[in-house]
Amino acid sequence: MGIKEWIIPQDRQFFDLMERLAETVLEGAELLVGFIDDYTDVGSKCHQMKEIEHRGDEVTHEIYELLNRTFITPLEPEEISRLASALDDILDYINGVVHQMHIYGIDNTDPHMIELSKIIHLSVTEIAAAVKGIRIMKDPVSIEERCIEINRLENLADDVLGHAISDLFRTDDAIEIIKLKDVYENLERATDKCEDAANVLSDIAIRHS
Amino acid sequence: MGIKEWIIPQDRQFFDLMERLAETVLEGAELLVGFIDDYTDVGSKCHQMKEIEHRGDEVTHEIYELLNRTFITPLEPEEISRLASALDDILDYINGVVHQMHIYGIDNTDPHMIELSKIIHLSVTEIAAAVKGIRIMKDPVSIEERCIEINRLENLADDVLGHAISDLFRTDDAIEIIKLKDVYENLERATDKCEDAANVLSDIAIRHS
Amino acid sequence: MGIKEWIIPQDRQFFDLMERLAETVLEGAELLVGFIDDYTDVGSKCHQMKEIEHRGDEVTHEIYELLNRTFITPLEPEEISRLASALDDILDYINGVVHQMHIYGIDNTDPHMIELSKIIHLSVTEIAAAVKGIRIMKDPVSIEERCIEINRLENLADDVLGHAISDLFRTDDAIEIIKLKDVYENLERATDKCEDAANVLSDIAIRHS
Repeated sequence: MGIKEWIIPQDRQFFDLMERLAETVLEGAELLVGFIDDYTDVGSKCHQMKEIEHRGDEVTHEIYELLNRTFITPLEPEEISRLASALDDILDYINGVVHQMHIYGIDNTDPHMIELSKIIHLSVTEIAAAVKGIRIMKDPVSIEERCIEINRLENLADDVLGHAISDLFRTDDAIEIIKLKDVYENLERATDKCEDAANVLSDIAIRHS
Repeated sequence: MGIKEWIIPQDRQFFDLMERLAETVLEGAELLVGFIDDYTDVGSKCHQMKEIEHRGDEVTHEIYELLNRTFITPLEPEEISRLASALDDILDYINGVVHQMHIYGIDNTDPHMIELSKIIHLSVTEIAAAVKGIRIMKDPVSIEERCIEINRLENLADDVLGHAISDLFRTDDAIEIIKLKDVYENLERATDKCEDAANVLSDIAIRHS
Repeated sequence: MGIKEWIIPQDRQFFDLMERLAETVLEGAELLVGFIDDYTDVGSKCHQMKEIEHRGDEVTHEIYELLNRTFITPLEPEEISRLASALDDILDYINGVVHQMHIYGIDNTDPHMIELSKIIHLSVTEIAAAVKGIRIMKDPVSIEERCIEINRLENLADDVLGHAISDLFRTDDAIEIIKLKDVYENLERATDKCEDAANVLSDIAIRHS
């Protein structure tokens, strides 16, 4: 690193990396929807998911490294690290649930899982668009609207989880309950992580508008 | 927002909102005790709980908004946001466990649940009193004493949880174990969240005394 | 506290306390390995573990207290509190899993538990050495290498957990699944907490080198 890199604002690099991270999370969410919708070739899809998650980790790491060697940042350093960490967390949950279904030996997916995966995909789509929006910051209102939509989707996921668990306890196969409960809960937690990311994006939109 | 609001300290508003939030958490804790003690009308009590939790969310949101548009705050901005978030978390857990019991179709409550709900209520009572205390900050020692009591209650809840789980594994109904274990654990987690709030309150008492 | 203590750097005390905390976590990790390897006298070993955890809490508390009354700190205050809290979390998980095995009435340990406990022990050994390294900060590269090793160990623990859970679901004893799943997961979570500590140590090494 030269002194030049340290002093000259690295705005473009930060926004490029953050968009790349958001696109990687979106790739993960797309794989998840396909995985649950067409539950075949489970092992090979797990492998692809792992590769996406690994790429996400690398971009997150690059963001932290750039942060450590840059003096003038386009957003507060804490905002950058919170956003990167929130995006990374979403991908961790998506990756985690895909592997969990494989490890648990789950044989079939069901409408609750399909619905939850679609909610995750919609949330991540909003997040990726909002991340693009913070670069220009011409339209903080549209970022706010996306964050409100992500909150709505998180509440919806809560309801879907409630119905899924309620249905589950009407069966009497304890081992099936153990397995599916974890899968439903972790899908719902991915939407909590989307809400965390939305909260950071909303803070950024408010402070920099 | 006018420039005036931004410059003139908004101390009274901050403390008013924080006390309102603490009172709302206390309302939730009172409903929880009643819910577990007299486990009837479960659906309608869940509805009331949801309404309390919603009010708590709104006050929390107001605190963050005031923080975003105020320059001179009566406590460090980070202290305010940590405290609001800790109080909100307690209410989330209380609300979560009430809904969980409903969704899981739990038929009866038991002495372990009653004991845990009373511990939560006692802790939140201490927290609400300590939150009142930070406005005047005439008596940091009494805030410290309340925080020590909340820590003691959290340790007590740990012990109650241990006994409850130990008892539970003496039965051989796996589905009942799955359900009750989650309820006990989430009740205990609410006391962990009380301890988090106490830690923030204790930091504030130390720094501003 | 005198004004002198507030102004004169308390570097030695900070590093002494942090090393003492890391050594206490290492003591906990050693007890854990012995506990799982030779699963006898479970009650009395739980008691010893509780005592170690209690000492860890006290040192953590001393670090926070020193932080509150010191003006010039050898690392950023936030780095000190993050590191203390990360070390304390590792010990909490180690203590938690030991008590859990006792409360759950687990009769035997197995090769998965042995492997996970050894991974925890290796990670904590690296952490304790890295904590020693930040005092002198002559060799940030060796701290970095230890952090990379801790990351590798966390990935390894993930794989071990996957195999353990996969094996577990091949049995058909639901209550055994409930118990062992919690134990395996909490052992693996202790390695996540080691990774959190490594991330703080790595940040410190980068910023202060």
